[in-house]
Amino acid sequence: MVALKKTKPEAGLTFMPEVAVPAIGPRDVLVAVTHAGICGTDRHIYEWDAWSASRVPIGITVGHEFVGRVVAVGNAVMRTQVGERVSVEGHIGCGLCEPCRTGNGHICEKVDILGVDRDGCFAQYISVPEENIWPVHPDIPDHIAAVFDPLGNAMHTVMAAGVSGRSVLITGAGIIGLMAVTIARAAGAGTVLVTDVDPRRLELARQLGADLTYAADDPEWPAKARHATHEQGPQVLLEMSGHPRAIRQGFQALRNGGTAALLGLPSEPVALDLPNDIIFKGVTVLGINGRRMYQTWYQSESFVLSGRLQLEPIITHRLQLQEFDSGFKLMQSGDAIKVVLSVPQEGN
Amino acid sequence: MVALKKTKPEAGLTFMPEVAVPAIGPRDVLVAVTHAGICGTDRHIYEWDAWSASRVPIGITVGHEFVGRVVAVGNAVMRTQVGERVSVEGHIGCGLCEPCRTGNGHICEKVDILGVDRDGCFAQYISVPEENIWPVHPDIPDHIAAVFDPLGNAMHTVMAAGVSGRSVLITGAGIIGLMAVTIARAAGAGTVLVTDVDPRRLELARQLGADLTYAADDPEWPAKARHATHEQGPQVLLEMSGHPRAIRQGFQALRNGGTAALLGLPSEPVALDLPNDIIFKGVTVLGINGRRMYQTWYQSESFVLSGRLQLEPIITHRLQLQEFDSGFKLMQSGDAIKVVLSVPQEGN
Amino acid sequence: MVALKKTKPEAGLTFMPEVAVPAIGPRDVLVAVTHAGICGTDRHIYEWDAWSASRVPIGITVGHEFVGRVVAVGNAVMRTQVGERVSVEGHIGCGLCEPCRTGNGHICEKVDILGVDRDGCFAQYISVPEENIWPVHPDIPDHIAAVFDPLGNAMHTVMAAGVSGRSVLITGAGIIGLMAVTIARAAGAGTVLVTDVDPRRLELARQLGADLTYAADDPEWPAKARHATHEQGPQVLLEMSGHPRAIRQGFQALRNGGTAALLGLPSEPVALDLPNDIIFKGVTVLGINGRRMYQTWYQSESFVLSGRLQLEPIITHRLQLQEFDSGFKLMQSGDAIKVVLSVPQEGN
Amino acid sequence: MVALKKTKPEAGLTFMPEVAVPAIGPRDVLVAVTHAGICGTDRHIYEWDAWSASRVPIGITVGHEFVGRVVAVGNAVMRTQVGERVSVEGHIGCGLCEPCRTGNGHICEKVDILGVDRDGCFAQYISVPEENIWPVHPDIPDHIAAVFDPLGNAMHTVMAAGVSGRSVLITGAGIIGLMAVTIARAAGAGTVLVTDVDPRRLELARQLGADLTYAADDPEWPAKARHATHEQGPQVLLEMSGHPRAIRQGFQALRNGGTAALLGLPSEPVALDLPNDIIFKGVTVLGINGRRMYQTWYQSESFVLSGRLQLEPIITHRLQLQEFDSGFKLMQSGDAIKVVLSVPQEGN
Repeated sequence: MVALKKTKPEAGLTFMPEVAVPAIGPRDVLVAVTHAGICGTDRHIYEWDAWSASRVPIGITVGHEFVGRVVAVGNAVMRTQVGERVSVEGHIGCGLCEPCRTGNGHICEKVDILGVDRDGCFAQYISVPEENIWPVHPDIPDHIAAVFDPLGNAMHTVMAAGVSGRSVLITGAGIIGLMAVTIARAAGAGTVLVTDVDPRRLELARQLGADLTYAADDPEWPAKARHATHEQGPQVLLEMSGHPRAIRQGFQALRNGGTAALLGLPSEPVALDLPNDIIFKGVTVLGINGRRMYQTWYQSESFVLSGRLQLEPIITHRLQLQEFDSGFKLMQSGDAIKVVLSVPQEGN
Repeated sequence: MVALKKTKPEAGLTFMPEVAVPAIGPRDVLVAVTHAGICGTDRHIYEWDAWSASRVPIGITVGHEFVGRVVAVGNAVMRTQVGERVSVEGHIGCGLCEPCRTGNGHICEKVDILGVDRDGCFAQYISVPEENIWPVHPDIPDHIAAVFDPLGNAMHTVMAAGVSGRSVLITGAGIIGLMAVTIARAAGAGTVLVTDVDPRRLELARQLGADLTYAADDPEWPAKARHATHEQGPQVLLEMSGHPRAIRQGFQALRNGGTAALLGLPSEPVALDLPNDIIFKGVTVLGINGRRMYQTWYQSESFVLSGRLQLEPIITHRLQLQEFDSGFKLMQSGDAIKVVLSVPQEGN
Repeated sequence: MVALKKTKPEAGLTFMPEVAVPAIGPRDVLVAVTHAGICGTDRHIYEWDAWSASRVPIGITVGHEFVGRVVAVGNAVMRTQVGERVSVEGHIGCGLCEPCRTGNGHICEKVDILGVDRDGCFAQYISVPEENIWPVHPDIPDHIAAVFDPLGNAMHTVMAAGVSGRSVLITGAGIIGLMAVTIARAAGAGTVLVTDVDPRRLELARQLGADLTYAADDPEWPAKARHATHEQGPQVLLEMSGHPRAIRQGFQALRNGGTAALLGLPSEPVALDLPNDIIFKGVTVLGINGRRMYQTWYQSESFVLSGRLQLEPIITHRLQLQEFDSGFKLMQSGDAIKVVLSVPQEGN
Repeated sequence: MVALKKTKPEAGLTFMPEVAVPAIGPRDVLVAVTHAGICGTDRHIYEWDAWSASRVPIGITVGHEFVGRVVAVGNAVMRTQVGERVSVEGHIGCGLCEPCRTGNGHICEKVDILGVDRDGCFAQYISVPEENIWPVHPDIPDHIAAVFDPLGNAMHTVMAAGVSGRSVLITGAGIIGLMAVTIARAAGAGTVLVTDVDPRRLELARQLGADLTYAADDPEWPAKARHATHEQGPQVLLEMSGHPRAIRQGFQALRNGGTAALLGLPSEPVALDLPNDIIFKGVTVLGINGRRMYQTWYQSESFVLSGRLQLEPIITHRLQLQEFDSGFKLMQSGDAIKVVLSVPQEGN
């Protein structure tokens, strides 16, 4: 089969025309990938940044967000049939620990991630444990099902924070920040405010339902955001940028008693003014990682089926797997938001 | 009347033998103070640190934790009678804002604090709004009622975090940290672990029910704490020290999915490793300020009346108001934990 | 002044052209009523049913939902000015008990209700405690401000249950049920299902955003509702009818693990199959009463200002106070939903 | 092997000296049972009441609470080793539905229960899915591990209701009610009140930490319970009796804003005064079923290891499997609370 692999400890990925189809164990499922999304994490691996170099093994097949069809199942698989259209939760928990056994496998200490710790989905076939299979509802198109992983990140953040009837500030209008805008709107948010450095992203955020947007380099935006929310600040902060300054400004803007959900990953320690930003304010801060297994998946399915999410404007480019280089470059330039790759099918 | 005032912008307080009894407005209550506790905040004002110099007006009567008897009420006071024994919530909210009108006056943006922003309780009389009056149950002795304010800080922290059946790490065994030990025990905590730099405090923590204690300067304590809690770390962190290193180590020790309640006030920004300490772990962080009005007071009353708290070992010294200098010095030396002052009564 | 009073223990109300303007105490506010809504409770009093006869004193001025202007304040009033446009929370708590002191005055055991236990708002003037005053935002029109009380019942129910991203069944499309439809929609509900006996109400429910409606006398509706919600049943039940059969059917339809919020008041004991309807299902049931003080009011204001509620179709009739008889008859016939009365102003 | 089976549709069970050892599938585990508890459900089947006759198939091996050792594993078993000492969650979910995939398998609509729907543990061997295996901590003795199933019922009820710092009323001092007493005490409850018809049970409840007990047939007990809890009623009701009168009285006693957790199963519909018992009071009612998978198991392990539970007085009798008839009769007479049976080991 074909696969996109990290073959050298440097920038780039290699398109391999002939690699072995992965084996499956008795509880595993073999999925023929049809569409896969490029994630910011994939871009880190493509660019081979410090994090990638420290974690990702050379030789791995990259990619973790996708949709496909089941083509084979292990002999102890009980609930998955050949032919099913499926997406896959990319966090593979140990199955033994307290988080794994209480519906919190997303915070398993021994989690393996597809395309990071073991072979991923930028390939014609992928082998995954049956437990990670998510059957895709027939009314959900392939290119949407392919991005349920990042949609789930945004969904987990929005639903954990609780936006219904509350004003919401989203710092960072990247893929997940923009998904959070449309989810927050559908989930009943009050005023939605968005910050980003790129005016094109802010324009798109408004199109997706943001009421107010601010240039992230305007030092006055926290004051403006407070003014726009009854002079008290937004009740919810969804931090999607990972930028230390945005994090600090987000806390400054946040209302007393508010909730901050942190998803963006700063690459350095962030100095926080704990008394003024968190303690005196009586703020609740939530660390958000992955997707709740599998509550988040049910929520994503339900919102997508409701027709109340606008995801099409976020999926800006659809390319062939072989065109992956263009995909990464479009992301680097900021021209693309979400790129979905079509994977060539056997016999085509 | 006599009063203890800050009369000069330098260390120390002045015992004033003859100041005017405060006036009361139509909705105010005049309380004859009988016993008052010395708080860490009072010590900051006594020592005139940077925070005090920036906030506290010269001429103020200090002190905010006390018990006394009502001696006069304004003509629009409806629910308080002369003669009642009362304690007082020291945070005086604006009464108009959303926090004040939803049971969250402790995070009112315009809060005035007794003994910090307006005249406090180190005096024979104090005037307070009726709304801040807390009638003291007859079974609660004076020296315990006098410390309901700091007890309420500890209670708010413990109850907000939720310790029932969970392992609890308390970083910092000062007054409030020690109160948190006995409250956590009574509130159903599992294993209770405590850190401090002072071995005497750790000894007292064990006496109050801590299962394990660690010297805060042992760099291995987070690893030991994780080992002692099923190799996963404690489920709850109650941060009572305000020390940047303790805060960081506390987050390192904390279990994935755990809850951190921050009460201690660092005097400088704290650099946090947000991805590893909060985000990947899926941690919930709660900023804790004051006491919930008045849920925390009901909880404190209920726990005290249950007989399940050990507060006597924490109230180490009982002095006369005039001996305040000894009280502060005992606190500075670490020999005292909580000092309660008896206030001379009119006619005595 | 003019007032609408219950003067005899029988059906009907009396328009009194000359009664004394109420006195105000030092903490009270005198409000000149401009618009008042007729509530189902008022209709019970008008019809003098068993409940009214057992509770309401003869001679009382009826009515409790209204808007007006402050014309006088007691000498200890601190935060309300003459001239302010205000609505009023009609539940007057004792102010002393645990619920009253923790933001839960709506469940005070000694609550007095305007127009039920003391003189209400169907009059030119009403005296209320300052604590119950709600300043009305200038962007909210009078006829909407006049119905903040029932809107608050619906808001409290919807927000307590939590509808964001969840399927919601509303049994009973009366005033509050219909308000709940538009609130649930704005608060981010998934599929909204509504039952009622009156097809006109179901038509209006669909106009307000209900996805599916069922005739309450169709015995198959619970099965249909389950079918329409992934064969599992709706995740939330908002019981607004008070009919025993609707309550039982609502529980039958409800999903395992779902939430039922009960607001409708059955007039007789309801026999429930606790094992199958609540226990095996792992259901959470919430008793809903009044409005949270004052969290619900902030939520109502925020939703109204967002422009996302459709309240105009629910306010079907606007009459003069003197036309109250027509108003009650329109409600009895089912032709009216909410009737708002204009109160004549002094000097007009 | 030997097994205790229901062989005829009438009262009694049959001790079968020679039945086939159950087969295991690829994901199943074969456990050699060493100790098993007799549950109230087993007694219903023994007595062959209406519920049993309607659900339990003739020929089934009864029993579902036990401890044993793994003697064989299927070829796709991944996390369980031969030789491990284990207990087993007796609710076998479908694994496919939303509850099963979100940590809520206890409310799976298609749940199979050991000893009710498929062969249970009153036998030398039992076959169960690996997912239901609970490894027993070495510090927990066999007779305690054998009753983790009912302990889990009590734990789930207590922890769902939330007792820390709250007054707790337990109606019904049977096995689970008594376990709830010691758990509530360890979990930080305030005043604990217990009702039952049997004075011996009330005596034992006091021994386990109940502060006050009431004869269930004293019609004044709800008033007494309210009086004992600040005249407001207990904050939490744990309903363990399933008796309609106890349920109604429990709601009457419960404090406004309180929480009622219902575990006891009434055998007939219960007529509730919804307005006065639930709606006006603003009560939260929780239906409790089984154990949360597997959060409850972790909680039970943690409490047992803490040494803070008193379970020995509840396990009143230890018999041999062959003495099952005596066991059931001891339960019927009220002389026994929990009976644990020792199962003969192969080769013994």
